Amino acid sequence: MLFDLDGTLIDSVYQHVLAWREALAGVGIDLSVWRIHRRIGMSGGLFVNALLRETGRVLGPEQIRDLQEAHVRHYLEQLARVKPLPGARRLLRRLTDLGVPWAIATSGNRASALAGLDVLGLAPEVVVTREEVEHAKPDPDLFLAAAARLDVDIAESVVIGDSVWDLLAAQRARALGVGLLSGGYGREELERAGAYRVYEDPADLERHLDELGLRADPFPSGS
Amino acid sequence: MLFDLDGTLIDSVYQHVLAWREALAGVGIDLSVWRIHRRIGMSGGLFVNALLRETGRVLGPEQIRDLQEAHVRHYLEQLARVKPLPGARRLLRRLTDLGVPWAIATSGNRASALAGLDVLGLAPEVVVTREEVEHAKPDPDLFLAAAARLDVDIAESVVIGDSVWDLLAAQRARALGVGLLSGGYGREELERAGAYRVYEDPADLERHLDELGLRADPFPSGS
Repeated sequence: MLFDLDGTLIDSVYQHVLAWREALAGVGIDLSVWRIHRRIGMSGGLFVNALLRETGRVLGPEQIRDLQEAHVRHYLEQLARVKPLPGARRLLRRLTDLGVPWAIATSGNRASALAGLDVLGLAPEVVVTREEVEHAKPDPDLFLAAAARLDVDIAESVVIGDSVWDLLAAQRARALGVGLLSGGYGREELERAGAYRVYEDPADLERHLDELGLRADPFPSGS
Repeated sequence: MLFDLDGTLIDSVYQHVLAWREALAGVGIDLSVWRIHRRIGMSGGLFVNALLRETGRVLGPEQIRDLQEAHVRHYLEQLARVKPLPGARRLLRRLTDLGVPWAIATSGNRASALAGLDVLGLAPEVVVTREEVEHAKPDPDLFLAAAARLDVDIAESVVIGDSVWDLLAAQRARALGVGLLSGGYGREELERAGAYRVYEDPADLERHLDELGLRADPFPSGS
C-alpha cells in the first residue's frame, strides 16, 4: 500500500492552502483560496505554473524558488496545529502486523515531509519525496519509486490519496487508486478521477480493509 | 437574486473553518478540518449538534454559546485576510444597473455578517442574518425572509450559494439554486444537492447571466 501524506495520513491540507496563500500574497498575487486547494498535492512546479496561468502573471525561476521557500516557511510555522488524521497510526501498525508492505510518497519537499512524519512518529526511510524523482504527481514517478523501494509490483499495489492528483498518478502507474475524503475533496471528484473506493479517513479505511481484498499474510516476514 | 455571503461573495470559508477548529480545540474537541468544512454554511446550532454527534461529546447550552462566541472571535481576528471573491462587487453593481432586485441571506450571526459586508463595501440593510429568522440553512427561512424583504415571489427567485446547505434551502424554499465553486465544494456535490447550474465564482456567474434567463428590466425602478 502506497500512501500520500498530506490530507491522507496527516490533517495538513488547510495549513498548506493558507501557507500558499500567504506566499502568493507576498509576491502580490491574490488568488481565491479554493483555487489553491484544488491544486494542493500536485508537483510544486506544476502548481505554480497552473496558478500563474490563471492569474496571467509571469515569474522567473528565482522568484518561483523564493515562492516555494516562502510556502515551506509559512507551513512550518503552523506545524504545531497539524495532527495525525484519525486512525492513521493504527492503520499503519495494522498493515505492519499483517505483513503488508507500505510506504509514503509525497509531492512535498523533504523538509515538509519529514516534519509530517514526525507528527506521525515515523522514521524518514518510509517516505519518497519530490527530490528523489524527476516528476511529481500527477506523474506516476513517486508511486513507482515507492513500489520499487518496497520491491513490490506497482500493478499489485494500492495507492491511497485524498486528491485527484494521487488518483491520476495511480492510474498512470497502473496501480489501484483509493480515495480519502480527509483532504477536503468531494467523493464524486475522487471517483471521477478513478478511485476504486472512497473512504472518509484512515480509520474508515481500516474498517473496510476487506473491501480491498486485503488478507493477512500467512507467513509474515517478521514471524 | 438571493445570495449567500461566505464563499459566495467573500473568500472567507477557510478562515471560518480554521476559526471553528480553534474554538473546538479550546473545549478539547479535536476534529478533522474537512469535517468542519463540510458543515460550514449550515445553522450554527445544527453545526455544533452535528459535530458533537460525530465526536460523541455532550455540551450544555452555555458551553455551546461560548463555543459560538469563540468562533466569532477567532474569525474576526483573521478578517484582514478576507477579500471579496473575484467579480462579486461588479456582479452586484450590474444587477442593480439591470434593475434586478437582490439581497444577501447568511446563516452567520450579525457581527460576522456586517464585517463581511464591510469587505464588500455594502450597507447593512442588504443582509438577512441568523438572528432574524427561527431556523437557518438548510431550512428555507433565510431565503424566504430575503425574498419578502425585496417584495418578490420566492418561486421567481434565484438562490446563489457555495454550499450544499444553500442549495437544499433553495429547494425547500422552491427557488432555483445556482452553485459556486468558490467555497471549496466540488461541482458534483453541488449538482447533486440540486444546483441548476454551477459556476466558478461571481465573475464566472456574471459572464453567464444569460444562462439564468436574466434580461434587463425594460422599466427599471430607478429610471
